[in-house]
Amino acid sequence: MTGTLYGLGVGPGDPELITVKALRLLESAPVVAYPAPETGESLARAIVADYLSPAQEEIPIRMPMRPDRFPAQDVYDRAAARIASHLEAGRDVAVLCEGDPFFYGSFMFLYGRMAERFPVEVVPGVTSLVACATAVGAPLAARNDTLAVIPAPLDPQEIRARLREVEAAAIIKVGRHLAKVRAVLDELGLADKARYVEHATMRSQKILPLAQVDGEAAPYFSMVLVHGRGEAWRL
Amino acid sequence: MTGTLYGLGVGPGDPELITVKALRLLESAPVVAYPAPETGESLARAIVADYLSPAQEEIPIRMPMRPDRFPAQDVYDRAAARIASHLEAGRDVAVLCEGDPFFYGSFMFLYGRMAERFPVEVVPGVTSLVACATAVGAPLAARNDTLAVIPAPLDPQEIRARLREVEAAAIIKVGRHLAKVRAVLDELGLADKARYVEHATMRSQKILPLAQVDGEAAPYFSMVLVHGRGEAWRL
Repeated sequence: MTGTLYGLGVGPGDPELITVKALRLLESAPVVAYPAPETGESLARAIVADYLSPAQEEIPIRMPMRPDRFPAQDVYDRAAARIASHLEAGRDVAVLCEGDPFFYGSFMFLYGRMAERFPVEVVPGVTSLVACATAVGAPLAARNDTLAVIPAPLDPQEIRARLREVEAAAIIKVGRHLAKVRAVLDELGLADKARYVEHATMRSQKILPLAQVDGEAAPYFSMVLVHGRGEAWRL
Repeated sequence: MTGTLYGLGVGPGDPELITVKALRLLESAPVVAYPAPETGESLARAIVADYLSPAQEEIPIRMPMRPDRFPAQDVYDRAAARIASHLEAGRDVAVLCEGDPFFYGSFMFLYGRMAERFPVEVVPGVTSLVACATAVGAPLAARNDTLAVIPAPLDPQEIRARLREVEAAAIIKVGRHLAKVRAVLDELGLADKARYVEHATMRSQKILPLAQVDGEAAPYFSMVLVHGRGEAWRL
């Protein structure tokens, strides 16, 4: 009997925004793996810290943050081997995923390595996308709005083309691309409508009109939202 | 002391996919309101049925389903008045929202009527978008994919234009627009990649390659997914 690999969405940051199902599976897993920076604390682990028990074995998957090294396939190879040894011994392994496992998550790198060899169950989670809309206090998309989720690392002309056909947009992975994103939205006359959200649902949450954000860079867990017609309901 | 209006995302269908926070607030609310069809059972209520207590007062918001009557503003006016009388008497009211309250939800019609007069707290939820991706078993969007969420009621040429600039797409509110959606995806050579998902995470869940879906119409709670580069990880 091999164990099951669980990909658990733990939500956007507030520990209470984990689902009842993910919490149940997390508490019953003898082994817990999670993405972590090269040094320092894992955000995914911090979200569920209060739910962990000292009896659980932890596997931090420490990823080098240098862009030329990301995603470091050798790191995932080693993590997959370590997780596989637990599954082969019949122990379930829960992998923590910020937000949702299949929505721009790094879980796919483990999933691709393991899903043919082991039983896998994925539990969807609350995405930062809807958490940011909630933080702003207005429906992100309504009625027949088209919503685009656009990664900020794209070229300015690609971002522009994608924004042209939609009513609402979330520009994700802002990080060091903040100045570029602001320039594109300025050009399209959308800067006034855009809002910057950092660390939604966490104690460090910050919401600003994009025009009031200083500097050239932002944290990785930040997003710029352009609301669609739901904006009319903002209060 | 007025009560608080809670907009609670209850997730896509599996009762365990409610968040710990929404469940806590639901269980402590003396009054629970939810969207419902003109006759018959409310899906939002069915999702949380096991969590409700007979002591809670229930307010079904029964919406006529005729397109020319939707959304019936008079229905929301009356629901808002009834909810307001509870809030004025100091009783909290929990409004149940399938998926997430601010992601194409009808909650905005109540929110717009009440948020200036009463304290409101919105709790984000797991969307059908990520639930469908989980059901299919592949990351919906990965790396620098752009993802578009496109309502099926749009004209064919509008759907086409929105699909052209993106790697991944979710076409929502399929319902009676199924044949049109299929025709557009056929034209763009995307029909082979597209998957049809009905009632994700519920017992009645159905997943089919779009080409194998019979008929001209589908249930309202169905979606067509075109996976992006995450498709490579599908197993």
